[in-house]
Amino acid sequence: MQNADKKIKVGIVGGTGYTGVELLRLLSQHPQVSLTAITSRKEAGLAVAEMFPNLRGHVDLAFTTPEEAALNTCDVVFFATPHGVAMAQAKALLDDGVRIIDLAADFRLQDTKVFEQWYNMPHGCPDILREAVYGLPEINRQAVAKARVVGNPGCYPTTIVLGLAPLLQPQSLIDLSDIIADAKSGVSGAGRKAGVGTLFSEVSDSFKAYGVAGHRHHPEIKAQLDLLAGESVGLTFVPHLVPMVRGMLSTIYVKLLPHAKDQDLQALYETFYQNETFVDVMPAGSQPETRFVRASNQLRLALHRPPGHADRLIILAVQDNLIKGASGQAVQNMNLMFDLPEGLGLSQIAVLP
Amino acid sequence: MQNADKKIKVGIVGGTGYTGVELLRLLSQHPQVSLTAITSRKEAGLAVAEMFPNLRGHVDLAFTTPEEAALNTCDVVFFATPHGVAMAQAKALLDDGVRIIDLAADFRLQDTKVFEQWYNMPHGCPDILREAVYGLPEINRQAVAKARVVGNPGCYPTTIVLGLAPLLQPQSLIDLSDIIADAKSGVSGAGRKAGVGTLFSEVSDSFKAYGVAGHRHHPEIKAQLDLLAGESVGLTFVPHLVPMVRGMLSTIYVKLLPHAKDQDLQALYETFYQNETFVDVMPAGSQPETRFVRASNQLRLALHRPPGHADRLIILAVQDNLIKGASGQAVQNMNLMFDLPEGLGLSQIAVLP
Amino acid sequence: MQNADKKIKVGIVGGTGYTGVELLRLLSQHPQVSLTAITSRKEAGLAVAEMFPNLRGHVDLAFTTPEEAALNTCDVVFFATPHGVAMAQAKALLDDGVRIIDLAADFRLQDTKVFEQWYNMPHGCPDILREAVYGLPEINRQAVAKARVVGNPGCYPTTIVLGLAPLLQPQSLIDLSDIIADAKSGVSGAGRKAGVGTLFSEVSDSFKAYGVAGHRHHPEIKAQLDLLAGESVGLTFVPHLVPMVRGMLSTIYVKLLPHAKDQDLQALYETFYQNETFVDVMPAGSQPETRFVRASNQLRLALHRPPGHADRLIILAVQDNLIKGASGQAVQNMNLMFDLPEGLGLSQIAVLP
Amino acid sequence: MQNADKKIKVGIVGGTGYTGVELLRLLSQHPQVSLTAITSRKEAGLAVAEMFPNLRGHVDLAFTTPEEAALNTCDVVFFATPHGVAMAQAKALLDDGVRIIDLAADFRLQDTKVFEQWYNMPHGCPDILREAVYGLPEINRQAVAKARVVGNPGCYPTTIVLGLAPLLQPQSLIDLSDIIADAKSGVSGAGRKAGVGTLFSEVSDSFKAYGVAGHRHHPEIKAQLDLLAGESVGLTFVPHLVPMVRGMLSTIYVKLLPHAKDQDLQALYETFYQNETFVDVMPAGSQPETRFVRASNQLRLALHRPPGHADRLIILAVQDNLIKGASGQAVQNMNLMFDLPEGLGLSQIAVLP
Repeated sequence: MQNADKKIKVGIVGGTGYTGVELLRLLSQHPQVSLTAITSRKEAGLAVAEMFPNLRGHVDLAFTTPEEAALNTCDVVFFATPHGVAMAQAKALLDDGVRIIDLAADFRLQDTKVFEQWYNMPHGCPDILREAVYGLPEINRQAVAKARVVGNPGCYPTTIVLGLAPLLQPQSLIDLSDIIADAKSGVSGAGRKAGVGTLFSEVSDSFKAYGVAGHRHHPEIKAQLDLLAGESVGLTFVPHLVPMVRGMLSTIYVKLLPHAKDQDLQALYETFYQNETFVDVMPAGSQPETRFVRASNQLRLALHRPPGHADRLIILAVQDNLIKGASGQAVQNMNLMFDLPEGLGLSQIAVLP
Repeated sequence: MQNADKKIKVGIVGGTGYTGVELLRLLSQHPQVSLTAITSRKEAGLAVAEMFPNLRGHVDLAFTTPEEAALNTCDVVFFATPHGVAMAQAKALLDDGVRIIDLAADFRLQDTKVFEQWYNMPHGCPDILREAVYGLPEINRQAVAKARVVGNPGCYPTTIVLGLAPLLQPQSLIDLSDIIADAKSGVSGAGRKAGVGTLFSEVSDSFKAYGVAGHRHHPEIKAQLDLLAGESVGLTFVPHLVPMVRGMLSTIYVKLLPHAKDQDLQALYETFYQNETFVDVMPAGSQPETRFVRASNQLRLALHRPPGHADRLIILAVQDNLIKGASGQAVQNMNLMFDLPEGLGLSQIAVLP
Repeated sequence: MQNADKKIKVGIVGGTGYTGVELLRLLSQHPQVSLTAITSRKEAGLAVAEMFPNLRGHVDLAFTTPEEAALNTCDVVFFATPHGVAMAQAKALLDDGVRIIDLAADFRLQDTKVFEQWYNMPHGCPDILREAVYGLPEINRQAVAKARVVGNPGCYPTTIVLGLAPLLQPQSLIDLSDIIADAKSGVSGAGRKAGVGTLFSEVSDSFKAYGVAGHRHHPEIKAQLDLLAGESVGLTFVPHLVPMVRGMLSTIYVKLLPHAKDQDLQALYETFYQNETFVDVMPAGSQPETRFVRASNQLRLALHRPPGHADRLIILAVQDNLIKGASGQAVQNMNLMFDLPEGLGLSQIAVLP
Repeated sequence: MQNADKKIKVGIVGGTGYTGVELLRLLSQHPQVSLTAITSRKEAGLAVAEMFPNLRGHVDLAFTTPEEAALNTCDVVFFATPHGVAMAQAKALLDDGVRIIDLAADFRLQDTKVFEQWYNMPHGCPDILREAVYGLPEINRQAVAKARVVGNPGCYPTTIVLGLAPLLQPQSLIDLSDIIADAKSGVSGAGRKAGVGTLFSEVSDSFKAYGVAGHRHHPEIKAQLDLLAGESVGLTFVPHLVPMVRGMLSTIYVKLLPHAKDQDLQALYETFYQNETFVDVMPAGSQPETRFVRASNQLRLALHRPPGHADRLIILAVQDNLIKGASGQAVQNMNLMFDLPEGLGLSQIAVLP
């Protein structure tokens, strides 16, 4: 256990986006964290609370240039940056003994060819990638605790991998060749950069699928499911855009193998997640709403067996895409890495209505 | 062709809900319609434009009691009422030579046992039901033209049946045992009755699935697909509630049979719907948004073949649930029944943004 | 009256924004209009219906370069462009006998100093500006009919000027030094250009005032009120941003002069606007909602005398900012300029819900 | 200071509405509170977390009947009930030494005639009313600390009274006869009861004024301003409904008296509120957004002097109507009443985006 007197020195690279402001909200109230620096070359000199006035009175930091930030004196650095930034700075930080949690995709995909295909850039540090841990605590808790570099999972993958994990181990209960994940996300998942496609007047009071021909989270989800299943799975993944700020719901359709049809799957899930603080298996037949987890680190699951289809299982998974799907999970990983209680600083109750 | 001098005398029963106000908007500007009466026992005496001020200057009618309305002098009566009302009044109207278009479910399901199971009431006129036509013009055009009674389709069924029809005839191209329709609707589909579940503060900025254990449109969709396919299909149907007023998108997942994998399905759909005014097959790979059809009678479709799944087809279908999914389709049926151009009074362009 | 056989040849400059797509929606169904060309240097070659799929099946045009467009062969050209474009092209078009309706601000402010102060550019054609007519048909109908150049009013000014006009003429009924207009607009008023400030995640589920220290529409409103009142008025104007796509409501607070307190102001307004197609004075005490005018060219007004304040009058005015506040009003002006019925092509009923 | 070992025993009457669920969210994490009972005759037996699943894992209570609740053993009881409930139960509780915080209007208005006029019921306990304290801590801190009964302020009054207080004391700086408060609220202010007027499809993507002819908060605001000013003020108050769940912004227009025009009002406000945890005077010229305070107990203010109006001041005030405007303020009052640090359990940072 971390010495109560010695707080973790935390730096943030980036931080002008939505995962950044959420990291700041969570870390500024974390009892064992000392927020040391936040960098943004473009916004250097600007008080963080001027950009995000919700932080007024809670965060006194100003953005600084990377040069001024002395990130190498931190215990851990979070990257809330575009893809590609963390891998350029990882080596120097590691050499100085700083641990890294990357909220972008640089350390999520072990296959660099897949990475390069989907992110249109060569991978800058394949050797570091090899030691990086995929930061899904419920699956990789022990590896995270020892990791120097954590690739924080994408938002969609978190819901789908946690939604399916109990069915895959120790031996698959489902037809692995035929998994369908119809996923729906709030608009904050697209980030805070200017663009016509996410203007209020373009997405409000409307609904659409996007990325149907291919989405970057597809290979990430598949890689994790492959690992859990021990073989290559067949996954159809279609993301949709919901006119809401935050929240994510994945509706996952699977086919049960004959030996699974009569199992008590509800009990299976409840047992699988019984010690998890942040995964809530709701009573059978529940219909979780994204607001049940808004602004909290909870992921809630519900199972349905549609009438007339003895071999069909539907899993509903909801989370706040910015918390359990991003910044909250990153803090959860940090807690593990520094031997703190996993839920420290993450006990916020979801805000409803 | 209807004599241009003699307009169709139209009555509306109900009309205090959303399909009612949309019927009024469309019919009040229809060049061949004379709006004669609108009944609501509860609101008798109230000017329609007082309840729906968007109609000020366009609709002069007041709600009347059924007794005053003399509906038996109309050429056609629309029922924009709760389930069960139309079947109680159908016989008397038909005896007076009045045709009927019911926007509720009384004349959608030929199997009265299924009707009774899902709507919790006995069917009041099975004999009339037998002659009733399911009012999906693109499928049943000729029968609608001759019908005395039309059961106007549900909103979800319209998207899913039209989305799948080209694959089912003359011979199925898909695995009929394994159809998944993941559907999403705006909140107006729940109607205008007071209820906690559809309050703004309950559904705004949130997303959920509902009716997962069973939804009334499931047997309706299945019945129509069974008819088209000539056999019983296996359908999984999960509706979701989107925080938007109107609009519906269905994401339909099917498996192609071996002989279909190499067919040009885009061409198949374009040919199937080439003469349809209200079904638009968008270019391959399009991602339709519900706002592309808002406040119009259009249904737009797009096909996707997800990479790495040679046998998987995804169909996206969007419509305005209150127009093509309800009142617009009802007017389209009326046009057919009175030998008018099918699109008369329905040329409104979708409102975007 | 325009010869029914000879349609008006219409060109649009710009047209990739929200006023553009609304012009296209209205003009493509206008019975006396032939849409001839739409220009956008950036999008040249792109089918309009590809950018705005709601127009599929209704508009066949593609964007062209200005060079290809031959705008000088049009009868009238609409500018749906950023400020400054129309004034650069006006002379050449006028020389070729083309009339101009500018939806930007180039021809709204007769005082070029004020224009230059608020729009940060010199005025390019003060001589043309002098003959330009402020296109508020209810106030300037006869001048619009004869105009070669019309400056189409801003959205806020339309609500506030029409909301106050009956009180100002022939002699003011209110304290002209103390007018407060607290105005609220949907987000589409900010246009379709990429920017962080109008992202869905920035404005949804939130509310704010903006431009409190000064807004471009302030001098425009004041100039029109000054003209109507015959003297300089004192106006406080605070715009606010509502998380909705379209719609505008202005709450206007004025103090009645002693001789006005006992007048029947409701009757005054009803008389003032009795022949107007597009201004609806609702019954006393009505509370208009923006959805009562959504997607229509109506402006609806209601008067309130707050209890306990004998000298206080509150005027509520609602419109669709993109229609009566922009593109619909532009078409209304075109109808006047070409001696057509003022409401031709503008009879769409507001879409509710 | 309360003994750390002895937590405050808290009961809640009502609690099935939005102020109820927010009380539960705040109190369940308050370090000095023991949630003892929550009553709802209608929902007796239902687990609170079943109605409000955001509380799963945090609140184990079930609703009970008042009889079972033994509220008389509590230290304090919150009433999150319709108007009229608290005044019926107050005497019995006080007799047992229980303190009361009423979130309804029973103890807000000292003038029972005014109460009866606006709430359509006789006041049940004028004697208790006389000792009740209006629970606005920033104004009545000392009285709250000693109170047995607190009337928790309405949401609109909180913004307007705190927005104006610095101008009224010790001597008015403004024309007291001419105060205009144009206020805007999210829909949650209307509560969680079923009703057509607050359905999603009625209020989404629209905007309106309501209660223009008179609103219950008008006499409450006026009574507090009268007290602060020492004389009767003239107040025009117009509330509006914003299509957002929570949040409130009041735009307040006042006229400065001659001696006030040259004062540094920004400094005045900053000084007035310098020791307040929950009132934030933002830098001059700021434009607060409701999301800057979402889900927090903050109220943020900004001052504007509109150009060209030397005697006009505009005050912008934002709060979360359910927190500082209701449940958060109630907890703040409780802290005062039990001699705890005023901000205990209320340090949540606003959730943005």
